[in-house]
Amino acid sequence: MRHRIDVNSDMGESFGVYRYGADEQLMPYISSANVACGFHGGDPSVMRRTVQLAKRYGVHVGAHVGFPDKLGFGRRYISVSPEEARDYTVYQMGALDAVLRLEGMALNHLKFHGALYMMALTDYTLSAVILKEVAELYPHLKIYTIANSETAKAASHYGLVPVSEYFVDRPYYADTGVKMFGWTVEETGNPRQMAQRVLSLVTHGEFIGADGQKISLAADTVCIHSDTPDASAIARILRETLRDAEIAVGS
Amino acid sequence: MRHRIDVNSDMGESFGVYRYGADEQLMPYISSANVACGFHGGDPSVMRRTVQLAKRYGVHVGAHVGFPDKLGFGRRYISVSPEEARDYTVYQMGALDAVLRLEGMALNHLKFHGALYMMALTDYTLSAVILKEVAELYPHLKIYTIANSETAKAASHYGLVPVSEYFVDRPYYADTGVKMFGWTVEETGNPRQMAQRVLSLVTHGEFIGADGQKISLAADTVCIHSDTPDASAIARILRETLRDAEIAVGS
Amino acid sequence: MRHRIDVNSDMGESFGVYRYGADEQLMPYISSANVACGFHGGDPSVMRRTVQLAKRYGVHVGAHVGFPDKLGFGRRYISVSPEEARDYTVYQMGALDAVLRLEGMALNHLKFHGALYMMALTDYTLSAVILKEVAELYPHLKIYTIANSETAKAASHYGLVPVSEYFVDRPYYADTGVKMFGWTVEETGNPRQMAQRVLSLVTHGEFIGADGQKISLAADTVCIHSDTPDASAIARILRETLRDAEIAVGS
Amino acid sequence: MRHRIDVNSDMGESFGVYRYGADEQLMPYISSANVACGFHGGDPSVMRRTVQLAKRYGVHVGAHVGFPDKLGFGRRYISVSPEEARDYTVYQMGALDAVLRLEGMALNHLKFHGALYMMALTDYTLSAVILKEVAELYPHLKIYTIANSETAKAASHYGLVPVSEYFVDRPYYADTGVKMFGWTVEETGNPRQMAQRVLSLVTHGEFIGADGQKISLAADTVCIHSDTPDASAIARILRETLRDAEIAVGS
Repeated sequence: MRHRIDVNSDMGESFGVYRYGADEQLMPYISSANVACGFHGGDPSVMRRTVQLAKRYGVHVGAHVGFPDKLGFGRRYISVSPEEARDYTVYQMGALDAVLRLEGMALNHLKFHGALYMMALTDYTLSAVILKEVAELYPHLKIYTIANSETAKAASHYGLVPVSEYFVDRPYYADTGVKMFGWTVEETGNPRQMAQRVLSLVTHGEFIGADGQKISLAADTVCIHSDTPDASAIARILRETLRDAEIAVGS
Repeated sequence: MRHRIDVNSDMGESFGVYRYGADEQLMPYISSANVACGFHGGDPSVMRRTVQLAKRYGVHVGAHVGFPDKLGFGRRYISVSPEEARDYTVYQMGALDAVLRLEGMALNHLKFHGALYMMALTDYTLSAVILKEVAELYPHLKIYTIANSETAKAASHYGLVPVSEYFVDRPYYADTGVKMFGWTVEETGNPRQMAQRVLSLVTHGEFIGADGQKISLAADTVCIHSDTPDASAIARILRETLRDAEIAVGS
Repeated sequence: MRHRIDVNSDMGESFGVYRYGADEQLMPYISSANVACGFHGGDPSVMRRTVQLAKRYGVHVGAHVGFPDKLGFGRRYISVSPEEARDYTVYQMGALDAVLRLEGMALNHLKFHGALYMMALTDYTLSAVILKEVAELYPHLKIYTIANSETAKAASHYGLVPVSEYFVDRPYYADTGVKMFGWTVEETGNPRQMAQRVLSLVTHGEFIGADGQKISLAADTVCIHSDTPDASAIARILRETLRDAEIAVGS
Repeated sequence: MRHRIDVNSDMGESFGVYRYGADEQLMPYISSANVACGFHGGDPSVMRRTVQLAKRYGVHVGAHVGFPDKLGFGRRYISVSPEEARDYTVYQMGALDAVLRLEGMALNHLKFHGALYMMALTDYTLSAVILKEVAELYPHLKIYTIANSETAKAASHYGLVPVSEYFVDRPYYADTGVKMFGWTVEETGNPRQMAQRVLSLVTHGEFIGADGQKISLAADTVCIHSDTPDASAIARILRETLRDAEIAVGS
């Protein structure tokens, strides 16, 4: 039984005049922020504001690295080569690192965004080509991904630390796993039910899936998507639920 | 009289399939490369190749930081706020820094590109807002600029090291200074004449300007624009001329 | 005394996942939509949805042509040449025109956006180089601008029809004219006061400015900025006020 | 036996300061230019210059429509929806159309570029969703594609005219068809051999493939990739060979 769980969310996805996500509302309740680095979302000024906001709440900051496709918000598969994806990752991490250093902070983790996240999950070569260099730059860095994915395997291979995610706002099925797209509110339940699932997961390592079956899962961090409707309510209720159960939130 | 002079040139301005500049031809003859960081030119993969090319020839690498305007190649004035320019600079320097660290190299200098270079020359506030943070990230970094410019003053104020540029491929006039745009080959002379001007500058601190008058100039580095016609011939002849005069090339 | 006034607003400035402006709320109350064409805001899919929305409400559509600077939302001055600005304008108008033809609609007007609007106001050459070709493509097209501006003069010169704008959500001063930036709610008043100013303007050709002085103004169209707080309330109350006064809304 | 064949090439792929392709060298020898529309390559000013260059040589102009991925030059697969691809196509065609109208020219054809070309070849839905609207805008327009592809089928379905391409600078195999990527000069032969293959194709409807086997092919147009090494030599020799055989070049 764990006494501590990390809660992460995507932050800093606004761009120029365009606002996206509920960063101010969510930041008080999370322990790790995945900050967009200007490719799929974010821009240099948004990155600074986001890092400063995270600092104010003592939230760790990781690089949320995505495809150079702002029009598609990094959610569209692009047939980049592993080397291109690696170069994009190094570039974005370096840019965020400079912003962090200005605030006296250090990079906490790396998380791939959108289509790159999904592609890397099942492509060892893609994950490995990128993570080999990530490990050179940031030995032992945490890599947020799904347990046992190719990304997790490549991370371990290069001495990085895979951190397993549980998506609190997505339905899980015993047979098919997490349903990232096309889900309904009926499948995910309300914020209170979500928080109970996390509590069950933390204390017993299992929870009841969307089809009523028990699901065992290793999870080091709980992800709340910042653009899920009611994301900040989910975050707040989750935080309160964990506090009442004397589970610390943090990595 | 000096026994050493730095020679710098803009490098890594290619983008995707698009080639720009004669990096391979010039790199053997220069001592400092101003590497584009993906805003006005360059991309993450070009940055890597350029840094590796510089490393092969023992060339120092600085960040060539420009406006986010690839269509205008960073040459168009954009009314950014000093804070925006600062954020763009931090972002680009951080990105390049990561590429350099992968090659075991450190950032040697910062040079503004194009319109940002020109704007910063005469705008102390713009220069200062940017360089204050540059100094926090990279204390004592070299800032390539024109002697006595507002950029040079701001650099000194923050403990950075202004490095004065002489533009070998641009005509200078005793009264009006350097003519950056709209010059002709008649005004600049041929590569051999350019090299003699540099030699005169290094050994006597002065040279004969385009109108025949003597010009005194403090210069720590000679800039060759990589897109000047015959740039690699200029670089080669300059290097040979300096070698024959037993002037070392380097910073 | 007029019996009809046009009401225009900026529409279609969303981009990818990013929402901007209150298009759905405003569209029912306006008669002309200035639709972003993918440079400062908008994208090909947003353009389609916006044109379809305009069609549903019988709203005329004009091209809102801006600088290629999504990061700055077209609000930053860029030192483009008149020829570049012309080429950008032709490109954006052509793109929107195709979207309109698919809906059986025709281009109603052209309005420059942001910094391009401001630059063209005082630069006859810039306005003329652009509008000369606009007139070739769309003879007699309406050009939304400020009365007596260089844009208006160039429009007239090429047989285009300048349409004078009154900015309902910006304060006017007898001496200095409209204050586009840095205004306060105290200066502009509430939606009901705004509507009364328009009514005065339409019926008497003059209204009371922010400093209490009478201002005479030629206005063919009233502009509501879609990102002004309460824009849709302003639009609704304006529409109701005009209806009660038996002033038709339309061009 | 035919007495006429069209020769097409990709044109106008330069961007800002970046030059790409040998437009000036190739344009005199071709009859149809596929002009980039600012997404994968090209920009509004390049489009104008390219259209004017085509006009000077009496070359027809078609829209070369690609993905919004300048960094990847439109060559990377992107999982856009058919509706997004349709919207991008309408936008790009409209933009080019305006440039053409200014020169008194009309759009001659549509050709998809790079990854979009390849994706559409085998995806009827993608082709159909796009071409349905193309047919509304430009009934009976020519669609350059590969014979019997899904693009060709969708074009026919909507009353558009599929024009079959033969890629003169790519090797063909009797069993596997054209090899678009990863080919060698040994497989393609020299310009003279290429020209002879076209001559054979035009006069006999067949030619000898890279493996020595006879290949029958319906071809209405011959494509020369403007970035193939020696593209202008290929074009010139092809043109001379066809002239000597009294085969007209044109569509």
